[in-house]
Amino acid sequence: MKLGEIVARFGGELLGSPETDVTRIVPLERAGEGDVAFVSSAKQVRRLEATAAGAVILAPELRDATSRPRIVCANPYAYFARLSAVLHPAPAHAAGVHPAAVIDPGAEIDPSASIGAGASVGKGAYIGARSVLEPGARVGAGVRIGVDCHLHPNAVVYHGCVLGDRVGLHGGVVIGADGFGLALDEGRWLKIPQVGRAVLGDDVEIGANSTVDRGTLDDTVIEDGVKIDNQVQIGHNCRIGAHTAIAACVGIAGSTRIGRHCRIGGAAMIQGHIEICDDVTVSAATAIMKSVHKPGIYTSIYPFQEHREWIRNAAYLRHMDSLAEKIKALEKRLQELESQRP
Amino acid sequence: MKLGEIVARFGGELLGSPETDVTRIVPLERAGEGDVAFVSSAKQVRRLEATAAGAVILAPELRDATSRPRIVCANPYAYFARLSAVLHPAPAHAAGVHPAAVIDPGAEIDPSASIGAGASVGKGAYIGARSVLEPGARVGAGVRIGVDCHLHPNAVVYHGCVLGDRVGLHGGVVIGADGFGLALDEGRWLKIPQVGRAVLGDDVEIGANSTVDRGTLDDTVIEDGVKIDNQVQIGHNCRIGAHTAIAACVGIAGSTRIGRHCRIGGAAMIQGHIEICDDVTVSAATAIMKSVHKPGIYTSIYPFQEHREWIRNAAYLRHMDSLAEKIKALEKRLQELESQRP
Amino acid sequence: MKLGEIVARFGGELLGSPETDVTRIVPLERAGEGDVAFVSSAKQVRRLEATAAGAVILAPELRDATSRPRIVCANPYAYFARLSAVLHPAPAHAAGVHPAAVIDPGAEIDPSASIGAGASVGKGAYIGARSVLEPGARVGAGVRIGVDCHLHPNAVVYHGCVLGDRVGLHGGVVIGADGFGLALDEGRWLKIPQVGRAVLGDDVEIGANSTVDRGTLDDTVIEDGVKIDNQVQIGHNCRIGAHTAIAACVGIAGSTRIGRHCRIGGAAMIQGHIEICDDVTVSAATAIMKSVHKPGIYTSIYPFQEHREWIRNAAYLRHMDSLAEKIKALEKRLQELESQRP
Repeated sequence: MKLGEIVARFGGELLGSPETDVTRIVPLERAGEGDVAFVSSAKQVRRLEATAAGAVILAPELRDATSRPRIVCANPYAYFARLSAVLHPAPAHAAGVHPAAVIDPGAEIDPSASIGAGASVGKGAYIGARSVLEPGARVGAGVRIGVDCHLHPNAVVYHGCVLGDRVGLHGGVVIGADGFGLALDEGRWLKIPQVGRAVLGDDVEIGANSTVDRGTLDDTVIEDGVKIDNQVQIGHNCRIGAHTAIAACVGIAGSTRIGRHCRIGGAAMIQGHIEICDDVTVSAATAIMKSVHKPGIYTSIYPFQEHREWIRNAAYLRHMDSLAEKIKALEKRLQELESQRP
Repeated sequence: MKLGEIVARFGGELLGSPETDVTRIVPLERAGEGDVAFVSSAKQVRRLEATAAGAVILAPELRDATSRPRIVCANPYAYFARLSAVLHPAPAHAAGVHPAAVIDPGAEIDPSASIGAGASVGKGAYIGARSVLEPGARVGAGVRIGVDCHLHPNAVVYHGCVLGDRVGLHGGVVIGADGFGLALDEGRWLKIPQVGRAVLGDDVEIGANSTVDRGTLDDTVIEDGVKIDNQVQIGHNCRIGAHTAIAACVGIAGSTRIGRHCRIGGAAMIQGHIEICDDVTVSAATAIMKSVHKPGIYTSIYPFQEHREWIRNAAYLRHMDSLAEKIKALEKRLQELESQRP
Repeated sequence: MKLGEIVARFGGELLGSPETDVTRIVPLERAGEGDVAFVSSAKQVRRLEATAAGAVILAPELRDATSRPRIVCANPYAYFARLSAVLHPAPAHAAGVHPAAVIDPGAEIDPSASIGAGASVGKGAYIGARSVLEPGARVGAGVRIGVDCHLHPNAVVYHGCVLGDRVGLHGGVVIGADGFGLALDEGRWLKIPQVGRAVLGDDVEIGANSTVDRGTLDDTVIEDGVKIDNQVQIGHNCRIGAHTAIAACVGIAGSTRIGRHCRIGGAAMIQGHIEICDDVTVSAATAIMKSVHKPGIYTSIYPFQEHREWIRNAAYLRHMDSLAEKIKALEKRLQELESQRP
């Protein structure tokens, strides 16, 4: 692809020959003739100077940091995302149903959809145009899947759930399993039937082995544009607001509502039955135990240290209250002494 | 279903016409004519007053908080669980083996069991009456599965493992994978063969993508009535006592014994080779690093706060020991001053 | 197997009759005639005295703690690992492709490999000698799998990824799913195509439902001999050094490099874009938020306590800075008093 074509398609200001040809995106260090690299931060200026890339995508403040052919744009990272999708297209999937797929006669598959070997689609399910079910993907009865969706190998959607358009489910994802609803009855657990659905909006992507439970009576809802990383668990009856991003290994307990445009760091844990407002960032490894009503960044990490120091330190950690009381007692005694001063 | 029938079947005291018809269970706010709602706590009295539900299930103390047709019972949540199972039955699965399932000739399948498309059953395995294997469920050689079990899509049971009766495994569950047994041998890890089994009792339910490893020499045992949520990991040689409930994202390391009637909160982590006695509750996001011999509630959460406050605070967190020493020094100096008082 | 044969094969010093026959390895407590047990630590000397095992494997310091037939060796645990692999061989898998497997005509399968029912292999993939794909294993286009690998049921390898020799992937493992690469563009998330691969060295074993993402532009690399437990998440562009062991439920965020011979404890969490040097041990449930350049043991656990004590204590936890300031103020006042002493 020529730089001239790229700029015509994606915008930005071109410095250098529009005839410069690039075929792939490569990190600055490894890039050579025919490669395009991108610089997302001014910290990379040294690496920029050293690159042998055929062309570079960079922000206005780095405009003069190299003399190589370059595209100057406001958001190089987003530019990279768009260009990469064109230079490195995902593997294509032929339309049609593989003979080793099993489609219930009562299901409806758009003729442009691609259903792989060993995938299965239940009664009354609908698969929209150009959607892909890779081998081993499981779609239950009555599920509705929109257009341009992609279920990677062994992804599972339970009966009755709904996926919008352009939804991606990676390998091993499970959508719509029963939530953890139990009633205690004389020391034994009675299962609460989970009769709601899991409903995913448009442009949702869910990482490998993540799970989104169906609702108990109402639905669990993942709004448009939500991005979820691997091994995330979303409990029953949750609602995740549009354009929120959730990093890997996060657990969100049941009936919690997360706002729009939130960012939940990896391995964070969010209590059930609470509300997080819009525009909240939760730091990695942080446990959120009550509602958050104010946008901002929230953290609860115990900072790590060498184990032997930790042992000395931790002996006091559990006795904060006694330290605080000692300080109070000291203050009192000191005050007494001070009052006796001549 | 008429309220009269419901009370005849499940007990409770009916106030209002036994001819009142209900067809589904709906939350208080959304319930209307023909819907039954339930109230589990006195806190919901306002919502109870505002409901348009055709009937309500409630506890004795709320008996007079509404004039709607109602069933008064000791445990409305358990009542709801039982009624819901009747009003909202799980999708039925036809008996028999789907032509696209693969059953080893040496396996035995009860004729009333239902084996879905693309499921597989290994040599010498036994599947009990009315048990369901959904598409892609994998049952290894020599596995024994009791009656009325339900393996959801892509659940996996490794060779030789045992499931009691009425066991549910949700999508992506893996039972009986090798535990993490390694011997260090000149800087390299030697695998310890894992030759025990994973043995699940009756009425066990395991949530999506959870894993229960097989034992090394002895078995890993999940006793009757244990309920496990999604993405839980149970290490090799563990024993989980009857009627214990484990919320999502919990990890229990190998050779640990958990008592009966325990409750393990979400994202808790339990060390290996320890014992937790009966009736212990572990709070969410809590790490249990040594044995617990006394029933009670145990917690180890660092409470979250705004990030900039956390930064100020955390600077001291790792130096508890130095704070404590400063206090001691102050006490000493103060004592000296006090002793010098005239 | 006779003790004489065992010592001939695996070394060690035999005390007792070489004709002693053993057929299986059994824990000390349960072992009887015909069983061999092993003792890994001097703490087990009481249990050793009480055992009825037909033979025992033990370390030199326990040589005289029993009079039973015994093999004395430097590393009884490693000895046990090797012997167990012979006494308890893994179930065999017949060479060949099951008729219900689906192999792309453009794939190459070594004739000695075993491809199970419902497994699938994509275009241009290669499966090496004696490798086993169990039912439902999914191998994408262009994947290269070495010799003696074992993909357990429903394990998934995305297109283009590479496995060395003797690699084990347990049930539900997903190798090569897209990493969490997102560019923010006017409040919406743009997906960064993930065009690198996941490359696993020789002798890597990965536990059930763990996930290793493919790289963005470069590869994610798991070096030789790395052992990963269940439900571990390795982000895109990570490199895990040779012979490192990672326990269950660990999350490692993207672009992080872990050294060789490290040990990462269960449920630990490691930040992205950092480096951990060789020979680092991270304690269970510990969050590592910045690079570690010195070998050693690192910990960040808040020690658990009874919930009511925790409530008293936690009230002060978030106000370390104010406690520290109080101490400073006390020091100042005390100094003033001391200076006024006659």
